[in-house]
Order: sequence, then C-alpha cells, then structure tokens
Amino acid sequence: MKKIAVLGAGYMGSAITFPLAENGFDVNLWGTWLDDNIINSCIKGKHPKLKKLLHKNVNLYHSKDLKKSIIDRNIIFIGISSEGFLPVFKKLLESIKDIKEDYIFFTLTKGFIYHNGKVKQLSSTAKELFEEKFPRKKFKWASVGGPVKAVELADHIPSLSIYGINSSEIKKLAKLFSTDYYRVLTSTDVSGVEICSALKNIYAIAPGICDGLYKSTREGMYHNFNSILFNQGIIEMSKIVYRIVGNKNTVFDLAGIGDLYVTAQSGRNRRLGELIGKKIKPKEAYQMMYDDGEIGEGYNTLNLAIKWLDQLDKNLLKELPLLNSLNNIIFKNYNPDLELKNLVKDYF
Amino acid sequence: MKKIAVLGAGYMGSAITFPLAENGFDVNLWGTWLDDNIINSCIKGKHPKLKKLLHKNVNLYHSKDLKKSIIDRNIIFIGISSEGFLPVFKKLLESIKDIKEDYIFFTLTKGFIYHNGKVKQLSSTAKELFEEKFPRKKFKWASVGGPVKAVELADHIPSLSIYGINSSEIKKLAKLFSTDYYRVLTSTDVSGVEICSALKNIYAIAPGICDGLYKSTREGMYHNFNSILFNQGIIEMSKIVYRIVGNKNTVFDLAGIGDLYVTAQSGRNRRLGELIGKKIKPKEAYQMMYDDGEIGEGYNTLNLAIKWLDQLDKNLLKELPLLNSLNNIIFKNYNPDLELKNLVKDYF
Repeated sequence: MKKIAVLGAGYMGSAITFPLAENGFDVNLWGTWLDDNIINSCIKGKHPKLKKLLHKNVNLYHSKDLKKSIIDRNIIFIGISSEGFLPVFKKLLESIKDIKEDYIFFTLTKGFIYHNGKVKQLSSTAKELFEEKFPRKKFKWASVGGPVKAVELADHIPSLSIYGINSSEIKKLAKLFSTDYYRVLTSTDVSGVEICSALKNIYAIAPGICDGLYKSTREGMYHNFNSILFNQGIIEMSKIVYRIVGNKNTVFDLAGIGDLYVTAQSGRNRRLGELIGKKIKPKEAYQMMYDDGEIGEGYNTLNLAIKWLDQLDKNLLKELPLLNSLNNIIFKNYNPDLELKNLVKDYF
Repeated sequence: MKKIAVLGAGYMGSAITFPLAENGFDVNLWGTWLDDNIINSCIKGKHPKLKKLLHKNVNLYHSKDLKKSIIDRNIIFIGISSEGFLPVFKKLLESIKDIKEDYIFFTLTKGFIYHNGKVKQLSSTAKELFEEKFPRKKFKWASVGGPVKAVELADHIPSLSIYGINSSEIKKLAKLFSTDYYRVLTSTDVSGVEICSALKNIYAIAPGICDGLYKSTREGMYHNFNSILFNQGIIEMSKIVYRIVGNKNTVFDLAGIGDLYVTAQSGRNRRLGELIGKKIKPKEAYQMMYDDGEIGEGYNTLNLAIKWLDQLDKNLLKELPLLNSLNNIIFKNYNPDLELKNLVKDYF
C-alpha cells in the first residue's frame, strides 16, 4: 500500500485526504500548531471546517508529532497557509534525517514568500532550502492548482485539478490520486501553475468589490462590469506568467480561467472584496474576517506580488492596470467605485 | 449631426440607442413586425422590456416604415434575432434604392444562418447578398461582441464591447459611440468575434444545467463543477475559432471569456440550461420560455453549429466533448447529470 503524509489539517489539506484515502493510500494527516483543535475534533468526530468524518485510513497527528507523521513516507502533500509555509517546510527538512528515497512534494499552498530580504516564488524558495540540506538529491515538486474548493472536493463534487510538475515520475504518481469525481491533470509549467494559484486570490477580490458596491442597490444587475473585471484578471495573469517565461496557455485553462472562476464566485477573497465594496476599510475588512477564522489570502498576496513584480521588472505594473487599481484601493485607500470605473473608462 | 438607423426594437437594438443618442447621434429606431407593440409603448412612454424612456433624439418607426427609417442614413445597426436576420436584411437591401455613400453595418445579431441549403456565418451570408445587389460597392461590416447585457447598458453600468471590423474607417466611427460607461474596442478578427458571440449562447447553457441539477440540493456548492464547464467552453471556443482561421486571442479576451462570463451568470441561455437541469425536456423548456416571450437562442444556435461544424470538418466535433454532450442532452435526450459527469471523468 502506498503511504503518504499530508501536512496541514485546514480546509485543503484535510479535503485532499478524501481522494487519497479512497484510492487506498495510507494517509498521515498532521496538523500545525494552529490545527491542534482540529485534530482533537477529528479524533472525536467530524472535521470542524469540512463538517465531515475523515476516512478511517487517515491517521491523525498533533503538531508535536511532525517527525512521527513522516516516518516511512516520502510522498508529502503540503496544505499550509502561505504565512505558515516557511516555518513548516524548514521544520520538515529538519525532521528528514535519513533520506534514502527521493522526496516528492505536492504543494497546495499558494502565494509568495518573503525570504532573505526578497519576495520569491514558493517553489524556488523550497528548492533552495531543500538543495542546501540535500545537495545530491533531486528536488521533486508539484504545484497543485486548478479550480478545487476544499468543501466541495470532500463532498465528491466533480472537480479537475492541474498539477504543475517537474518530473515525469510525478505524472505517474499523480494519476493514482484520481477518482470518479476528482481528476488530476498535469503540466510541466510549474511556475505558471504556481503563479496562477497565487494571483487568482488577488484578482478575485475585484468582482467581490463590485458585488459590495452594487449588490444591495442593483440586485445582481451589474454583470457587464463584473465580466470586465474577470476578463481583465485573466489578461493580466497571462501577462505576468508570460513575463516569467511560463506558458500563457496555462492561464487560458484550468489553472487560470477555471481557478479564477471558482474563486470569483465564492470564497474568502471574494468576500474580502465585498466588504471593501461596502466601504469598510480594507485593513479592517481583513481583520474582521481574520477574527472569524477566515483569511483573505489575496490581501497579503497582493502586498507581496507588488514587491515581487517590482523586483522583476520596474515597468511591468504599468501594463497591469487592474492590479495597480487593487493596490490603490487596498493599500492606499483610493475610492473603490471611482477607481474601478476609471479603469473601464480609460482601459487600453 | 451624425445620423444612424437601428433596426430591431428588442432588448439590444433599443439599448444601443442610449450611448448613440447621448453622443449626439440622430437615431431612427425601427421595429420589426414583431416589435410594433414595443414601438407603440415607446411612443406613449417607457420601453416595455428595458422599463425606461428612450432618449428624445430617438425617432420611432413601425415595421411598415423600414424605407422611411433609413432615408438619409448609411450607418445601420442591426439588432434582430438570428431567426429574423435574413428576412430583415433582404428587405433592407430592397429598400436601399439609391446608394451614394458606402453603407456600414453594425450587427448585434448573433448566430448562424441557414441559407441556400447550407449553414453559414451571418457575416458571410450578408456579404454575399450585399455584393449580389451592389457588386461595385465595398461591404463594410462590424460584428458587435463582448460582454454587454442590454438592460445594464441602458442603465449606464460600465460596459466594454468589442467590435470585429473589416475597415479602418469603422474604427474611427466606432470611437464616436463610446461614453463614460460604454467603451468600444475594435479587432480586425471579424469572424472570431462573430463566432464567439454565437457560441457563448450555447456554452452558457452548460453552467445553467449545473445550476438546475444542484442549486436546490447543494445551495450553490458545486462551483468546482461549474468552473470546469465554464473553462471547457472557452477551450472549445478557441479550438473552433482557430479552425476558421480566427485569432485564439479573440476568445481569450472580451469576446470570449468576457462574454461567456456574463452569459453564464444570468440571462436566457443560462435559464434554458437551468430548466433542462431540472429534468424538463429541452424542447419543452425552450417552448416554455418562448411562450413567456424569451428566446433561448443557444438552442437553435447549437442545432445550426453542429451542422456547420460538420460541413467544416467531419472530425472537429470529436475535439469538442462539451459541445457534443450538449448536443446529446438537448437533441438526443441524454441524461444531463450522467452526461456532464462522464465528461469530467474522461475529459482529456
């Protein structure tokens, strides 16, 4: 029987255990120091966020037992929030004492990382850290993307995921994760998939703002405006992916169009936008959600993405009017209504 | 003052009079033989579909007065349903007795046309008919596309439209239609814009079916499934446009992504899908809507598109699994739930 460890017992880490367990994997689910209560609940009964019992072949580990949870397994899913990724990944590398087989990382975490004074892609930071510790080993990595909401995955709603992979071995392995309702596709454009996963959390804020501005007065009748924002999100994502030598077609498919669609329809980043559209100050809106246990990841991702783009190419932001407007609205307190309307008026 | 005629007093023909009139155009709005009651209502007060007064510089013409409505104007918007296009366009050509200036057609109608035993693109049929009657004249044409719902346009919701044009003169002219809330962009990919406009009415049925299947039981929690269908619609539209030597980038922008987004969120084709998802026989669903005065255009467009694709390339439909499934569901009474689920399971 194949063995696997999943790090992070929040929404996504826990949801991925469903197709894994149903495919006969022996799954160790480890919760971070923020997840101890989740693990406790799961031991007693339902997962408190997914509102479901996990499968029986999912073994539960508290935060203190990271080392135990990865004993005898070299296939590791990482489902940590972007803020938590670096400390967990470092701890993970410390816990791998005796490396015989290659380790393979499947990463559900989305976003950028601030590391050694620079904003970096998560995969490149992980590679750096891994190769520092294991200079003779191959770094095998998959960035998991595509339109999959965790609760729906756990509920067996038909879902497609796209994995950006850097080794053909992973392709074979990933096929073993597919079920009737969860299908894994692969792409060699690791960076493209990873960047789409991060950026879609930013761009989904825009239709959310539109909802906040108009839902109460217009009863949904502002689709023209919303569709411009959705479309522009895709266009800008394709420009950014192209700039980092990813493949534009990655954006014009599940990792981009599909994932932004699902994120724009519902979820935490759309909700953050809605609060901002209702004239709540962005920082307060983020905090309100945080206090409810919900993180609007796009907020922090936007902050890091702006810095990352500036490192990459000082002129790029000029070609990304929507990203620039979101930055103006969220970090410079510009009026969201005026800012978005001006965008439509002067766009192109 | 620039003069313009708009043919068709339904949703879209009437809505376009708002930016035109506000830009100072003298607008003649002509209603077809199905629109006489609309014209009567507008003479007395509000437009019955848009629920608004039209602007004062919009002059109203009943169906019997087509010839009068185009006297002294060579810029003509056509906002007729696809079924009505051919008879109206023929009547229009008969009414143009004395052609001095070039005529310029802006066409809001979307779809395919059955003409002389073949299914054809609307623009090529119009060109054929025009050149038959005026062999020495240039055929100047714009296919109007992009994400614009008529009611929202009339209500000044920010909107972007993309016009596929075949002459640089039209580009200058189209700029005169823009307002603060309605912005016109142009593309030389006439066929691409036209085909996107038609196909999006078909592909928007799919998320509608998903709504019909799951809305009552899942309270919106089937976004993963919906996003696959949305994404696949775009992918297939890009394959079709590429096959007719259009530009894929037309699809990956307002004419494709933007317009499918708006159409998938709301409107008649989405509604047709919803009824089908609720297990109402497709033909009955179409008829129910028709009896309510609402035409689910995607139904007829699908029927014609399948024939058109077969004329074009007998193997193309194999690469279009969603289109094929929609055809199975709508014209062969396949089970919508099974058909769409199988698609996700075996897709790619």
